Amino acid sequence: MELVLATKNPGKIREMRKMLDLPGLTVLTHRDFDEWPELEETGETLEENAVIKAETVRDHFGLIALADDSGLLVDALDGRPGVHSSRYAGPQGDAELNMDRLLAELDGVPSPERSARFSCVIAIALPAGELQVTRAECEGSILTVREGSRGFGYDPVFCPKGFDCSMAELSLEEKNSISHRGKALRAARILLESML
Amino acid sequence: MELVLATKNPGKIREMRKMLDLPGLTVLTHRDFDEWPELEETGETLEENAVIKAETVRDHFGLIALADDSGLLVDALDGRPGVHSSRYAGPQGDAELNMDRLLAELDGVPSPERSARFSCVIAIALPAGELQVTRAECEGSILTVREGSRGFGYDPVFCPKGFDCSMAELSLEEKNSISHRGKALRAARILLESML
Repeated sequence: MELVLATKNPGKIREMRKMLDLPGLTVLTHRDFDEWPELEETGETLEENAVIKAETVRDHFGLIALADDSGLLVDALDGRPGVHSSRYAGPQGDAELNMDRLLAELDGVPSPERSARFSCVIAIALPAGELQVTRAECEGSILTVREGSRGFGYDPVFCPKGFDCSMAELSLEEKNSISHRGKALRAARILLESML
Repeated sequence: MELVLATKNPGKIREMRKMLDLPGLTVLTHRDFDEWPELEETGETLEENAVIKAETVRDHFGLIALADDSGLLVDALDGRPGVHSSRYAGPQGDAELNMDRLLAELDGVPSPERSARFSCVIAIALPAGELQVTRAECEGSILTVREGSRGFGYDPVFCPKGFDCSMAELSLEEKNSISHRGKALRAARILLESML
């Protein structure tokens, strides 16, 4: 069975490949195709964006497609950056600038008020029209400085609940075992396994 | 593990109980509680309504909740009655009046143009905040008169593709094996099984 990952984000591809390593499942990415549809993120929610991306790739290639849309929701910022996380500091989607903006906005906010959560929505679109959507979250708090160099996105400034380090200091296995995306991908894995 | 069905529809409860008969899973309904939250269907899509209902019941009781929102999409009516299927002939939600309206609107429409599909969205909301949403469809066509007395809703006027009878002439097992709700519940069953 073939599955196309509807993302060009190398960090997401790495985590997805690790979680979807199933016998009988061939995981394809944009690198396996000569052309690739434009994936719009015009939805107002993570769910809408994940479904748009999965259905666009499913419709384009006629294959099972899996897409992710994720966001960081900071309580002190009323849930921002949320669905706009990847372009928080501008349309170029620069992770460093995004973290700069976030840390600046939280400047002076004391530790107990820096609570936040990562939210991930995984959508799987099947050629027959069926759709699976899973949302999972990872609670934590925003650090005052970057720590660690693994992961991607906001990982260096996010401390998962129960840890005293950033998400970017965890190994891929550790991150997948507790992260929003890891949890959502586990449900996807179970459903794909049942289809093999 | 306990799961609450976020519906008062006896037909849906019957189909859900059948599909979710898992060792270790206790399926609860509104009859198991002294009070019950008001379940609004204010969403603009089946997905939104299913999620609203599942999250309302989850938040109210602090238990895993499963909700369904389903609709009949008729091509000759540009996808109507769709998300308004259960109240097509008025807020009282009378299935007989709904079918009367549908048959009247399709009066004179020839057989090849009576194609339609049932769509079902199942949402499972977990106390920790995770959410599973599954959409599945069942293709078919609208008959010119009612046939059969099983099932519920529009079943007597819907002929599933590949059959020459109505959905209301199928046994519960046959219906669940091909129906939109049966397909969506199978994915729910697989995910719940993995949590037991």
